[in-house]
Amino acid sequence: MLGAIEAGGTKFVCAVGDELGNIIERVQIPTTVPEETMPKVIDFFNQYDIKAIGIGSFGPIDVNPESPAYGNITSTPKPGWRDYPFVKSMKDAFPVPIGFNTDVNAAALGEVTLGAAKGLDSCLYITVGTGIGAGAVVQGNLLQGYSHPEMGHILVRRHPNDEYQGKCPYHQDCLEGLAAGPAIEERWGEKGMNLVDRAEVWEMEGYYIAQALMQYVLILSPKRIILGGGVMNQTQVFPSIYKYLQEFVNGYVTLPELSEYIVGPGLGDNAGITGSLLLAQRALQEEN
Amino acid sequence: MLGAIEAGGTKFVCAVGDELGNIIERVQIPTTVPEETMPKVIDFFNQYDIKAIGIGSFGPIDVNPESPAYGNITSTPKPGWRDYPFVKSMKDAFPVPIGFNTDVNAAALGEVTLGAAKGLDSCLYITVGTGIGAGAVVQGNLLQGYSHPEMGHILVRRHPNDEYQGKCPYHQDCLEGLAAGPAIEERWGEKGMNLVDRAEVWEMEGYYIAQALMQYVLILSPKRIILGGGVMNQTQVFPSIYKYLQEFVNGYVTLPELSEYIVGPGLGDNAGITGSLLLAQRALQEEN
Repeated sequence: MLGAIEAGGTKFVCAVGDELGNIIERVQIPTTVPEETMPKVIDFFNQYDIKAIGIGSFGPIDVNPESPAYGNITSTPKPGWRDYPFVKSMKDAFPVPIGFNTDVNAAALGEVTLGAAKGLDSCLYITVGTGIGAGAVVQGNLLQGYSHPEMGHILVRRHPNDEYQGKCPYHQDCLEGLAAGPAIEERWGEKGMNLVDRAEVWEMEGYYIAQALMQYVLILSPKRIILGGGVMNQTQVFPSIYKYLQEFVNGYVTLPELSEYIVGPGLGDNAGITGSLLLAQRALQEEN
Repeated sequence: MLGAIEAGGTKFVCAVGDELGNIIERVQIPTTVPEETMPKVIDFFNQYDIKAIGIGSFGPIDVNPESPAYGNITSTPKPGWRDYPFVKSMKDAFPVPIGFNTDVNAAALGEVTLGAAKGLDSCLYITVGTGIGAGAVVQGNLLQGYSHPEMGHILVRRHPNDEYQGKCPYHQDCLEGLAAGPAIEERWGEKGMNLVDRAEVWEMEGYYIAQALMQYVLILSPKRIILGGGVMNQTQVFPSIYKYLQEFVNGYVTLPELSEYIVGPGLGDNAGITGSLLLAQRALQEEN
């Protein structure tokens, strides 16, 4: 049996499953402080004979195997989790191969293996929710360099009608600061789900997402782009994304038909946990 | 003997060398039209017993091995070269393994193997000259997805004092449209090399380059960044790049010491031709 953790800021999804990415059993555990959350995580896996564990974690995290802080959550503002040695804690309880990556890289792996990008060796997975994050599989590998990507904080040009100041504590009006769920709520005075009929909301949201896609496409050239997260459940934003992306790219690069190129998740809300299971599988293969 | 071509818009550099990337002989051939340029290229290589050829070409090019147009230069405005079957022409003359990639990806390969990023498995190579282009090595592979990167055309925010309209025929005021050599010349009325003492020129140029680096770093997280090309010979721009990159990132991700992280090419003007020789070597290995 393989174990998987999708570690989010509000909840941990823990699952066991098989080597094909099938989930057999799953639980949700609230993310409070490590002393409270982690024993419950360990109790769950203790019920099974676990051969390897995959962790897709909220970040930032240290994914550099040569770093002394490898396996840690690093500079999160979330109380109790800063510098938390996530991999070490799990390894102490379960001396098995452990795969460790970002939640969004895990989701990208899930989607490229079993979801909306199945059969390709490359995809970009973006989540737009309380924050904006993205992960990518490039030529079959999870994208990683000096550290993991932090694509949600790229700089964007402001929409000409946008006077909202932005919500990112680091960059104020970066992509996340202007286009994540909390920014939508603060700008328009309502949550996105209550703004479905306000065309100007989704026109502006599409403008920002399309700008981000322009940058991602020109830099990474992914074979498919998957848009997930709560905000993307508002599918009325897609036409605006397609329109602006065409306008921004302006024929400079040839893209596939956009309605097939930029799509929702094939695995729905299971992209992250499925990808984490596949991280376990990869960790097992690498140690054998 | 291995052959290498660095195919640029004004000249082709052709070289022969060994498997370690050492150049033994080289010539320059003006880029006019294929009927004139290519026979000279072929004559040069005909003097040697060539085992494989690497081509680092100006673009856009088709690098997808599954595409019917693989190996072609595609939508270039350069007369005679549009849809030119570069790899096929060479293969007809030399039935040996041929590696084919962008000039900037080749330069990135040269730098990561023998230059300023030697010993790393990842680097980003950016050239700022008559245009802006970038290539990258990610986890040891040349970055490629649906197509090759086109990083020079990402969108940027305007410098508050910049009223120049921009020079890109596709996007007007994208990065290349505002920060490549011709934009500098048109904005300030002089070529960059004649503007060395004008601090505002390099302050603005650094603002744009730093914005691009912000996006590249957040999306790709390269282990080293190499800035080449004619404009980057104006090394007085580097302090402005460092200053603005720090300001834009604002501590959100931890970067290495910038003067070691963002550097000039270790191979100087030989990055592209050396990388092309390494493309030949890779092509030979892949077919064996």
